[in-house]
Amino acid sequence: MANSLLITGASQLLTLRGRAPRRGKALSNLGIVKDGAVLVRNGVIAAVGTRAQVEAHPEARGAERLELGGRVALPGFVDSHTHLIHAASRAEEYDLRIAGASYEEIARKGGGILNSVKKLRAATAEALKQRAHAALRQFAANGTTTVEAKSGYGLDIASELKILGLHRELQQEQPLEIVSTFLGAHVVPREYRGKARGADDYVELLATRLIPQVAREGLAEYCDVFCDRGAFSVKQARRVLTAGRACGMTPRLHAEQLARTGATQLAVELHAASCDHLEKINRADIRALAKSNTVATLLPGCCFHLGLEHYGPARELIEAGAIVALATDYNPGTSPTLSMPMILSLACTQMRMTPGEAIAAATINAAYALGRQKQLGSLEVGKLADLAVFEVADYREIPYYFGVNTCGMTIKRGKVIYSRAEACA
Amino acid sequence: MANSLLITGASQLLTLRGRAPRRGKALSNLGIVKDGAVLVRNGVIAAVGTRAQVEAHPEARGAERLELGGRVALPGFVDSHTHLIHAASRAEEYDLRIAGASYEEIARKGGGILNSVKKLRAATAEALKQRAHAALRQFAANGTTTVEAKSGYGLDIASELKILGLHRELQQEQPLEIVSTFLGAHVVPREYRGKARGADDYVELLATRLIPQVAREGLAEYCDVFCDRGAFSVKQARRVLTAGRACGMTPRLHAEQLARTGATQLAVELHAASCDHLEKINRADIRALAKSNTVATLLPGCCFHLGLEHYGPARELIEAGAIVALATDYNPGTSPTLSMPMILSLACTQMRMTPGEAIAAATINAAYALGRQKQLGSLEVGKLADLAVFEVADYREIPYYFGVNTCGMTIKRGKVIYSRAEACA
Repeated sequence: MANSLLITGASQLLTLRGRAPRRGKALSNLGIVKDGAVLVRNGVIAAVGTRAQVEAHPEARGAERLELGGRVALPGFVDSHTHLIHAASRAEEYDLRIAGASYEEIARKGGGILNSVKKLRAATAEALKQRAHAALRQFAANGTTTVEAKSGYGLDIASELKILGLHRELQQEQPLEIVSTFLGAHVVPREYRGKARGADDYVELLATRLIPQVAREGLAEYCDVFCDRGAFSVKQARRVLTAGRACGMTPRLHAEQLARTGATQLAVELHAASCDHLEKINRADIRALAKSNTVATLLPGCCFHLGLEHYGPARELIEAGAIVALATDYNPGTSPTLSMPMILSLACTQMRMTPGEAIAAATINAAYALGRQKQLGSLEVGKLADLAVFEVADYREIPYYFGVNTCGMTIKRGKVIYSRAEACA
Repeated sequence: MANSLLITGASQLLTLRGRAPRRGKALSNLGIVKDGAVLVRNGVIAAVGTRAQVEAHPEARGAERLELGGRVALPGFVDSHTHLIHAASRAEEYDLRIAGASYEEIARKGGGILNSVKKLRAATAEALKQRAHAALRQFAANGTTTVEAKSGYGLDIASELKILGLHRELQQEQPLEIVSTFLGAHVVPREYRGKARGADDYVELLATRLIPQVAREGLAEYCDVFCDRGAFSVKQARRVLTAGRACGMTPRLHAEQLARTGATQLAVELHAASCDHLEKINRADIRALAKSNTVATLLPGCCFHLGLEHYGPARELIEAGAIVALATDYNPGTSPTLSMPMILSLACTQMRMTPGEAIAAATINAAYALGRQKQLGSLEVGKLADLAVFEVADYREIPYYFGVNTCGMTIKRGKVIYSRAEACA
């Protein structure tokens, strides 16, 4: 009985129970239980329901107790798109962008992703790890319990392997679950630029050497490509993703952020787990996504940070029946936030998603985007006891109080991994 | 010597020293000292400069020490526009607005300000005070050390006096400085609506009874009017503000948020301390502000929360030479945030202010907007030792890491009133 925990006193317990993934109107069905409770056994949910229902469970009596005192509890956020490992902020590009330079102009001047690549190659693994540990504590403090993490600031064999190795070490050293994605095809590295077939040569390096090695060492579950203007073509993306799939890595894709390239159609064709960004998709792309099981992952933090007005078409995607997820895209260039509550605020105010839709998109649908809908994303018997507890009276207040973190406690596999304790002298 | 404190180890100490207020190019002059230090005596700054300069001060040797360990320190934020006292959130209107209802449509359906008035009148003073105390702790946790607070959700004599009385009690019961503003002319209360001269009758009640009483009891330093479409006309605003001024209260004004009404010209004519919002001002208004000492206070949280694209014209105001300030407009209807770092992020990404301009607008110019530029808003000898300390490597990272609070410590009159202490189990 020592490993049982009885959590009581959730004024609203958002279970997100039911079919996964969610499409259309089902997206806003949160399965709310008033005065909710959860019984946890060895990190897994053994019972969930009202306080009376759960207290009636035979194991409830001997369990350790955690009384929430009337706060709102929901499944821990699943952040399905981040660039966790990077060496430093790019705040120095912030003034340039405010002065009017576009993201692509800054990239041409040696800023952008290549700026981060330079910094990453120069950084020690230990320094990168310490920065990531600090970020993961902040993810937890904002209610996130699972983080997808992409490589892609290394762009050579040693540096990409360094990043993916850190994903594994971080998984072992701290409580959040890390889902590792290989993004060697982030941009063309400097040493392959200015040559006739430079980009293609780099793609071949990835397909024939790096991807097989990553797979042999079991360092990544997914393979991703930034398929966009200024990055990789659809043809190059196809080469990388099929090579990845041949080695057992499921495809996912950065698609249609800067220009419509056809990346979404490729994602659907290859049965990618998700295609992400989608600011520039057209109606045919939306229809294709709606008929597929490829998740449409929206990353509104980018538009916000870059000061763009054209957010991904969330309403059209939801109404067409696509599987919509939300993620932070945590990265130093275009979305330096790790707060999922901030992403919910953006989804509600800038993309007209309801608070309920946004929460489902950041939990159960995001879990589906990572192939973990049987373990994560809802509070149901047999799933991991991952919860985020918010100091609000109603779940809608989580996005409503924008820019303010109302997360008071985060629980991973039944263990409290974050608890707010602010000292006011 | 017991009341001396030596603060050292600010990797960047943003002093904001020099002339106040700041106009034009001077707005971005932060007076940064590397490896900065501050010596505090009885809550007031006795010396400020590099560590070596300040340690050479005769009082430094015996002072208590606070080592910041390389973080960025700046004057505590001055939030010059808030509706601090309100009874509850209006998260229930959030879904309506996302579904497409405008702010004014919601108001016509009994939502909006009158919704908050109903809740406030029903609330006990004790409940209101507890909510405000919790909010003030959050203001402090986000680096704010001075908060202007407006009445205006009472709209009858007893309720308005209740709010203003709470401003005074809060001033005595917690460390942040509260600057009290009387906003009886927020909207026309329900009981005066649907009558031929209802709004004018209410204005007369304010001018002849409530304002004199507020002044007699010393309950407010400023008198404010929401002069806009659906609220009060320029003529009515003039009546209220001149009555206020006759009783010793300095005018300030809500101007041109929903429509251009001429409120800005009135503010300049009456030498108002500030006119706030300004989303709909025209070029003549900008010129008038630039020639005046009336502060142009921008409130980008409203546009963000309401999902509007038309932010106040920050660049035009700065380039014309107006005194620009930034504030949260913390209120339950249009801007439920109390985070000044979030407002800085909005200013930078949505209004193209630089991080330096935004910080000056939220400190020294905001202090000027409250008539406190001699006591607050910069770190100079003789001013109050109000500081916010951020866990970042460069001041630009404060707005850059949007939606994440990087404030690690807040100091009011030389005392630590907030220190981050997050428990990660």
